[in-house]
Amino acid sequence: MAKLGFVGLGVMGSRMVKRLLDAGHEVTGYNRTKSKAEWLLEAGMKWAGTPRAVAETSEITFSMVTNTEALRYVTEGSDGLLAGINAGSIYVDMSTVSPAFSRELAKQVAAKGAAMLDAPVSGSVITLEEGKLSIMVGGDPAVFEKVKPILLNIGPKATYVGENGLAVTMKIATNLSLAVQMLAFSEGVLLAEKSGIKRETAVEVLTNSVIASPMVRYRGPFVLGMPEEAWFDCYMMQKDMTLALELGRQLNVPLPTTAATNEFLTAARGMGLEKQDFAIMFEVLAQMSGVKQ
Amino acid sequence: MAKLGFVGLGVMGSRMVKRLLDAGHEVTGYNRTKSKAEWLLEAGMKWAGTPRAVAETSEITFSMVTNTEALRYVTEGSDGLLAGINAGSIYVDMSTVSPAFSRELAKQVAAKGAAMLDAPVSGSVITLEEGKLSIMVGGDPAVFEKVKPILLNIGPKATYVGENGLAVTMKIATNLSLAVQMLAFSEGVLLAEKSGIKRETAVEVLTNSVIASPMVRYRGPFVLGMPEEAWFDCYMMQKDMTLALELGRQLNVPLPTTAATNEFLTAARGMGLEKQDFAIMFEVLAQMSGVKQ
Amino acid sequence: MAKLGFVGLGVMGSRMVKRLLDAGHEVTGYNRTKSKAEWLLEAGMKWAGTPRAVAETSEITFSMVTNTEALRYVTEGSDGLLAGINAGSIYVDMSTVSPAFSRELAKQVAAKGAAMLDAPVSGSVITLEEGKLSIMVGGDPAVFEKVKPILLNIGPKATYVGENGLAVTMKIATNLSLAVQMLAFSEGVLLAEKSGIKRETAVEVLTNSVIASPMVRYRGPFVLGMPEEAWFDCYMMQKDMTLALELGRQLNVPLPTTAATNEFLTAARGMGLEKQDFAIMFEVLAQMSGVKQ
Amino acid sequence: MAKLGFVGLGVMGSRMVKRLLDAGHEVTGYNRTKSKAEWLLEAGMKWAGTPRAVAETSEITFSMVTNTEALRYVTEGSDGLLAGINAGSIYVDMSTVSPAFSRELAKQVAAKGAAMLDAPVSGSVITLEEGKLSIMVGGDPAVFEKVKPILLNIGPKATYVGENGLAVTMKIATNLSLAVQMLAFSEGVLLAEKSGIKRETAVEVLTNSVIASPMVRYRGPFVLGMPEEAWFDCYMMQKDMTLALELGRQLNVPLPTTAATNEFLTAARGMGLEKQDFAIMFEVLAQMSGVKQ
Repeated sequence: MAKLGFVGLGVMGSRMVKRLLDAGHEVTGYNRTKSKAEWLLEAGMKWAGTPRAVAETSEITFSMVTNTEALRYVTEGSDGLLAGINAGSIYVDMSTVSPAFSRELAKQVAAKGAAMLDAPVSGSVITLEEGKLSIMVGGDPAVFEKVKPILLNIGPKATYVGENGLAVTMKIATNLSLAVQMLAFSEGVLLAEKSGIKRETAVEVLTNSVIASPMVRYRGPFVLGMPEEAWFDCYMMQKDMTLALELGRQLNVPLPTTAATNEFLTAARGMGLEKQDFAIMFEVLAQMSGVKQ
Repeated sequence: MAKLGFVGLGVMGSRMVKRLLDAGHEVTGYNRTKSKAEWLLEAGMKWAGTPRAVAETSEITFSMVTNTEALRYVTEGSDGLLAGINAGSIYVDMSTVSPAFSRELAKQVAAKGAAMLDAPVSGSVITLEEGKLSIMVGGDPAVFEKVKPILLNIGPKATYVGENGLAVTMKIATNLSLAVQMLAFSEGVLLAEKSGIKRETAVEVLTNSVIASPMVRYRGPFVLGMPEEAWFDCYMMQKDMTLALELGRQLNVPLPTTAATNEFLTAARGMGLEKQDFAIMFEVLAQMSGVKQ
Repeated sequence: MAKLGFVGLGVMGSRMVKRLLDAGHEVTGYNRTKSKAEWLLEAGMKWAGTPRAVAETSEITFSMVTNTEALRYVTEGSDGLLAGINAGSIYVDMSTVSPAFSRELAKQVAAKGAAMLDAPVSGSVITLEEGKLSIMVGGDPAVFEKVKPILLNIGPKATYVGENGLAVTMKIATNLSLAVQMLAFSEGVLLAEKSGIKRETAVEVLTNSVIASPMVRYRGPFVLGMPEEAWFDCYMMQKDMTLALELGRQLNVPLPTTAATNEFLTAARGMGLEKQDFAIMFEVLAQMSGVKQ
Repeated sequence: MAKLGFVGLGVMGSRMVKRLLDAGHEVTGYNRTKSKAEWLLEAGMKWAGTPRAVAETSEITFSMVTNTEALRYVTEGSDGLLAGINAGSIYVDMSTVSPAFSRELAKQVAAKGAAMLDAPVSGSVITLEEGKLSIMVGGDPAVFEKVKPILLNIGPKATYVGENGLAVTMKIATNLSLAVQMLAFSEGVLLAEKSGIKRETAVEVLTNSVIASPMVRYRGPFVLGMPEEAWFDCYMMQKDMTLALELGRQLNVPLPTTAATNEFLTAARGMGLEKQDFAIMFEVLAQMSGVKQ
């Protein structure tokens, strides 16, 4: 079993560490707020005081943080992951960040004699807990082969996508459909409801139809009652939409449904609903339709 | 076994009749072009020269035609289905038409002492042939119970949605997501491709991700090679989008992603691609992105 | 001076009649609600009991009604304008209706040995009262030349656009920009306001900038205080947008900004604001932005 | 007459300098490419080798550059404008840049004992040459009063908008309507044209209608023949749209027409038309409509 490091023990990261521990790996972890890691320490994880310290003690270091700024924060500076990375080691970032920054980071890692992969995941906490998370991987194929057995401890499918940065690109290209599908679903539910069909019936029909992606099946019922804690809030969803739109501008790909949907995430935030799961776009549309909740 | 009638023996209707014949029913059919029905006649279907003649000889008459105009054509006039409908019989329309027209027709059928259901289906030819078609039903619940066993010979799931006209409404509310999901999928594929990911890889990742609805799984690969014959061409898809947008205006439901996507179906037609499957929206977006096929 | 007839004495029609009377013409008028025409009768207009009666007594008959349905109502049937039209006379419809219906009507008028022009106007009540209304004309150019002097009594500019139906088409093609410009203007005002600029200042700068069309200059200040009576309410504006979108589908012209904007008119109606001037789209956007009025 | 400095002698900046020279001011200028400034040197402008040198010799220093990056380039570093700015002097930036960066710069200028104004302009080269440019000003009102007489040598109207950064915000809030109005105009022209109206006639009617803003009047005729040199190319226009969309996300203002239009600027770039004036969006829409040029 390899000596693993893990930086970023939030909702997703912590559950990944748990799966790695369960698989018998030695894991050293770091999180900005240590208290959130208590249950992992009890489960056998070792603690390190800085991202740098994690990297120094690991053959393979993982990170899973919120966005580009957070990744910059844990990788740069004298306490950062880059400062501690060992020559010959591997660094796997599982965050969804700007492809350009991911590629830049890969170069800096290479300059240290180590190798980096970007390995974002498709799926949510539930998919992860069910062991169904699929992982996309960008970087050197040989490095991917080395890390693959460990990635498979996290989720059952790891697909090689291409060079450094291309896995986060693929993730962004996937995620734009999350929000668009949810808004289109909401349009359908409201059309049905204002026609006289019960909202429950509309949700049941739609979540069993040809448009029922796993996302629609999981998240569709949220329009009947939002979850107490967001799976993926408006702020996080908009972060990915913004990455998609930036990429579209750089690469000259028009993104009409992404652009239209993104403005509804903005509206959700304007209406004070930003901490809710992004399915709350239904509520924005409902208010525009004059539907009282 | 009931004496059944079937008006409209196109791609979908003819295969439904085949399933009904296979289940042991006696079926009398009519189609504008008789030659297309030869194989059904060989399979045991009886022929009637007009929609009226079909209705006159049937306890339960089905229809499955292209749009509101076509339904008007087969139901009205001296040769029309309405002219032949027997008191006490049942009429089941499986077409996707304007909910308002469907309700109007139901009233005319009731005036003849018969009962009508609207029973559109969700799914394509393939879903139908695999016996997986799901059916939505609007009308009197007691009438639905009588017809249900026969509907289950067509597809495995028949869901009661509400009053007359509400099943076609539900169908329209479902179908808007077909086009929207396909355009969002296209946006993702092009973002990936212009970043340097192979189109095949992008399609594989997306069709195995959380956004992979049955529609995305079936139709996504079309961006690698369009089918020779459209499953559902731009004209048909736009017909449903237009029904959704009309309903939205009547009921005051804004439909932002539907409206944005519909303009790309218009573009597909403007670019001479209207007879292709609506997945050809990918091509419109590809041309706007400067991607040569 | 010619013997003129005028059917439809609403906000616009009545003021047109006044200008024709002021120019010395003999005018016979009809309106569904006679009481609204009292002031015109006092000003010298003659009354006729039906649209037919107006046409029977006129060399040139005008109509100015709300929409296609209203035009159908005053032209068809035994009391309708068509029934009374004299061979050799001229019929000028100034309403904004479906181009297809306008062309159909022109054929029916021709069958009576008379000639029709479609002559919609660009501008509002204020433009009309200021004598600045511009008129677009479709139909036979020779007929246009005959009517032109009388049209110039209504407004200072009458432009020949082409065959029957093309003037209403041109009107629709113009009017889509009304709503789109107003929504874009609202986006700008809200961006400025939420940045800390006073709404008054933002309106002043914008209404004096390169984007200040006459529409923006007149209607922009409505975001500081809506008028008691709508100049052009959401329902009327959406009627024109819908005509544009239908035309776009028939002619294969994608209308991305028209489609996006139209959904905000739907939202205005969903939020119960439909009787207000269409500038109320600002309020929809303000609510989506969390701006309290 | 004050000793003035001017950094950035491009299409707009150079003509501003000319007006300042004509008004009798002493102007020291700098541009990355000196050759472009020859005609100004002949007209009496003095040359400085760096932005720093310009600032060192000036009581009031102006800058007019392409975007945020360019402004960063001329202000930062040992040769930068900031390094040379005199205590007690005034710095007026006329570029359209990110409001956040403008505010940051104003702080750095204040730290040097000088004062900064942001003073972007509304209008194009033609408006400038005709002496009709309007200027928006952000910063300390007392500083504005001092600079106002000189700004009025550039254009006839200078409006105080508010604190530092608010004038560029106001500019961005104005400019989003440029692109949206142009795309809506294009929709109208193509609807008219495909209906059978000559493009010239459609342009004439629209540029004389209530939707004819100065922008529409100047730029509308471009659809009959694009100018050889872009007044404001797709890249520049998209820069401003992107600033608007970023601001919208920060301030929670949904921008539906801005977002929809921006994707057509992306399409223009995807189709290789990026160096053309942004009116080329007409061409994108024309191709989507199947209109051959």
